Amino acid sequence: MNPSPRPIVAIVGAGFGGLAAARSLAASPVDVVLIDRRNHHLFQPLLYQVATASLSPADISAPIRTILRKQRNCRVLLGTATKIEPEHRNLMTTAGDIHYDHLIVAAGATHSYFGHDDWARLAPGLKTLEDATLMRRRILMAFEMAEQADSQANRVAALTFAIIGGGPTGVELAGAIKEIAGRTIPRDYRNIDTRSTRVILFEARNRILPQFPPDLSERARLGLEKLGVEVRLNQPVQKITDRGIVVDDQFMAVRNVLWAAGVQGSPLAGSLNAPMDSAGRIKVEPDLTVPGHPEIFVIGDLAAVSQGPGQTIVPGIAPAAIQMGHYVAKVIHQSIAARSGDPPRKPFAYRDKGAMAVIGRASAVARIGRRHFSGVPAWLLWGGVHIAFLIGFRNRLYVLIHWFWNWLLNSRDARLITGQDPDDPDSRPEPQPAEQATIDSSSGRRIEN
Amino acid sequence: MNPSPRPIVAIVGAGFGGLAAARSLAASPVDVVLIDRRNHHLFQPLLYQVATASLSPADISAPIRTILRKQRNCRVLLGTATKIEPEHRNLMTTAGDIHYDHLIVAAGATHSYFGHDDWARLAPGLKTLEDATLMRRRILMAFEMAEQADSQANRVAALTFAIIGGGPTGVELAGAIKEIAGRTIPRDYRNIDTRSTRVILFEARNRILPQFPPDLSERARLGLEKLGVEVRLNQPVQKITDRGIVVDDQFMAVRNVLWAAGVQGSPLAGSLNAPMDSAGRIKVEPDLTVPGHPEIFVIGDLAAVSQGPGQTIVPGIAPAAIQMGHYVAKVIHQSIAARSGDPPRKPFAYRDKGAMAVIGRASAVARIGRRHFSGVPAWLLWGGVHIAFLIGFRNRLYVLIHWFWNWLLNSRDARLITGQDPDDPDSRPEPQPAEQATIDSSSGRRIEN
Repeated sequence: MNPSPRPIVAIVGAGFGGLAAARSLAASPVDVVLIDRRNHHLFQPLLYQVATASLSPADISAPIRTILRKQRNCRVLLGTATKIEPEHRNLMTTAGDIHYDHLIVAAGATHSYFGHDDWARLAPGLKTLEDATLMRRRILMAFEMAEQADSQANRVAALTFAIIGGGPTGVELAGAIKEIAGRTIPRDYRNIDTRSTRVILFEARNRILPQFPPDLSERARLGLEKLGVEVRLNQPVQKITDRGIVVDDQFMAVRNVLWAAGVQGSPLAGSLNAPMDSAGRIKVEPDLTVPGHPEIFVIGDLAAVSQGPGQTIVPGIAPAAIQMGHYVAKVIHQSIAARSGDPPRKPFAYRDKGAMAVIGRASAVARIGRRHFSGVPAWLLWGGVHIAFLIGFRNRLYVLIHWFWNWLLNSRDARLITGQDPDDPDSRPEPQPAEQATIDSSSGRRIEN
Repeated sequence: MNPSPRPIVAIVGAGFGGLAAARSLAASPVDVVLIDRRNHHLFQPLLYQVATASLSPADISAPIRTILRKQRNCRVLLGTATKIEPEHRNLMTTAGDIHYDHLIVAAGATHSYFGHDDWARLAPGLKTLEDATLMRRRILMAFEMAEQADSQANRVAALTFAIIGGGPTGVELAGAIKEIAGRTIPRDYRNIDTRSTRVILFEARNRILPQFPPDLSERARLGLEKLGVEVRLNQPVQKITDRGIVVDDQFMAVRNVLWAAGVQGSPLAGSLNAPMDSAGRIKVEPDLTVPGHPEIFVIGDLAAVSQGPGQTIVPGIAPAAIQMGHYVAKVIHQSIAARSGDPPRKPFAYRDKGAMAVIGRASAVARIGRRHFSGVPAWLLWGGVHIAFLIGFRNRLYVLIHWFWNWLLNSRDARLITGQDPDDPDSRPEPQPAEQATIDSSSGRRIEN
């Protein structure tokens, strides 16, 4: 498969970590193979804006091939990594086997429903573009269902949103939905007043944004409540059904439940036979390798890294993944020239630059180093940082223009109900065509290389 | 359902015709109910640009409710019209029955495979946003399949596109795909030269763009061939299979077949018990009513209208639908104040303003009245007219910016492979989750009003 004598670095996943690693290896004497099951890199921090109809999918994505088009030592494969065989240094993928010298596993995380997998269809989460357009569909369909409701009880249920999980995603979704209902669409409907929409944010712990300093959690809570969002602390969700949720032993009729609570490491991690934490993340060595395998690195959301005197956990955010990607690329570069007797690898050290979350129109919280910001200054910081890191000049321009219009006119540009909701046949506005035809799988289109 | 004594005008479909009718009735003493199975109006003339990754779905769509938000005598319903009962003046919909005084059927058309319905999964057509993102997926996946192909034969088949039908959609798709392959993505791939992509446009008649004057058909053909598109005239497709197509009794291995040939009136027309033409369109009276039913109008692509000395057929294009919508609204407005003894209705008269089609970068053909244009002038005309008629100032701005960038950098902004292809399991980059759960349909979410 590889005629050149250069070591092969296989990278699984073109998220922030995998992409940073690939780019950092541009000048190294290696051949990089980057495999992802998507053709695009996704700027996940803005995904909630697709789910809430501010941005289009293409605004926050860029084709991986195009990002890496000039990097001649990097090959991009579209496919799914299905299994790692560490003993054979082999990565099995739907696009064929890859024999690697170094492997970087940056496969990320998916939703975790804490053992209640049946909740997935009732409370969609937000990780991919498909998740985002499905969530957008559910949010917009809720108002349509309310407009057509045959009883006051159904109308109220349709206009009630429960968001499970008070991390940044939950906070951002809650604020955005309340703003859509209160500012963007009230004049669009005849039978309902969308301003009466209830948005309830449930958090199991005693404050929202638990990754932030307590004073910013409090300011975020006040900001959400000023918008009209109800924040319920110390209230883990006990049950989710077709009709509503059970919290604090009480049933509440809710048509719309959105999941922003748990994440779980990619199932690919299972084939590494390495120790994991409770969220399915690999407990890596200080150099981000899998114990016993100095040639296998795990980075990004899939890596459980604790460090420092208090063993603080490196958070699952983009800057941490990018730092890990750069670090691992450097380690690989150095190990190629290394000789026995060289000093051991320097451990990975996370530089904590801060954290930020948007609450609503001209409102956010941010911690930059040790400084805390809220309100308009935090919001401007948030916008500046996200625009700066968004990949591609055009994406930046489009997002800026969309933001400006949306802000100026209290509008949302992408209010499209498209596609079908696989889990909610009742919400389909049109009958389903009978086109679930199957195709002859012997047609030679499956690829092995 | 309607407490006011004003006549009810029900409109099925918020395409160009239905929307024009609804807006023209703003000042009439009627209550308008506009039902559509989508929440958005679609600017269909630019749909091929979504299919070919130039624009995002939201750029060419606008929520129907928002377009009509200020029109207080208009109610928008999201739902599907399932049956018309002319004898009861009743329209059955998935959002309840509507008892109308006047009915405007603007339900449009869908693809026609001329009796070969099994071709639908092999050769997708282009009518909805879902069609466009599916077609975009197929086009972009073709290059991925070629990059991973295990034999030269499979590679060539993957890099061959057959477009069936030489009308404007077929011409525009052929030009755009050849430009993507030749200019946008060549440097993205390592194993293939996308510039070797073959795009073949098959037309059953003796010229492409048969709706245009012969000299413009010829200029369009020359323009496409200059781009590298192969134009095959007098070549109806005889068969489409998983592996390729049969044309002129010869089999050709083609992985990608796109359908731009036939249209067929919406099945809703069947319940009118009115005479239809071979394409399932209602043969309407000169005032666009259904024979025997002066209160039921059929407009847009669903209406078969012949007029003038040569009985020329009014084409299925946006300007014709808009003119019909305005005409019908005026007829209804006048009929409300009408008394017996008034002169009969003036027949609908189509004012032919012209036609245009894009061939490629800085190349188009256009007929404006009796004047013919091609090349850059036609292309500028085309852009100007489409921007001018695109709904919403923001949509116009975004589309202009996207066009400018794409033109300047030979780029395509929306090169996303998203969703799943229901008809091609082999092309799925990731395994399918088992989440085809069904939901309790007794949950009270279905609405009757």
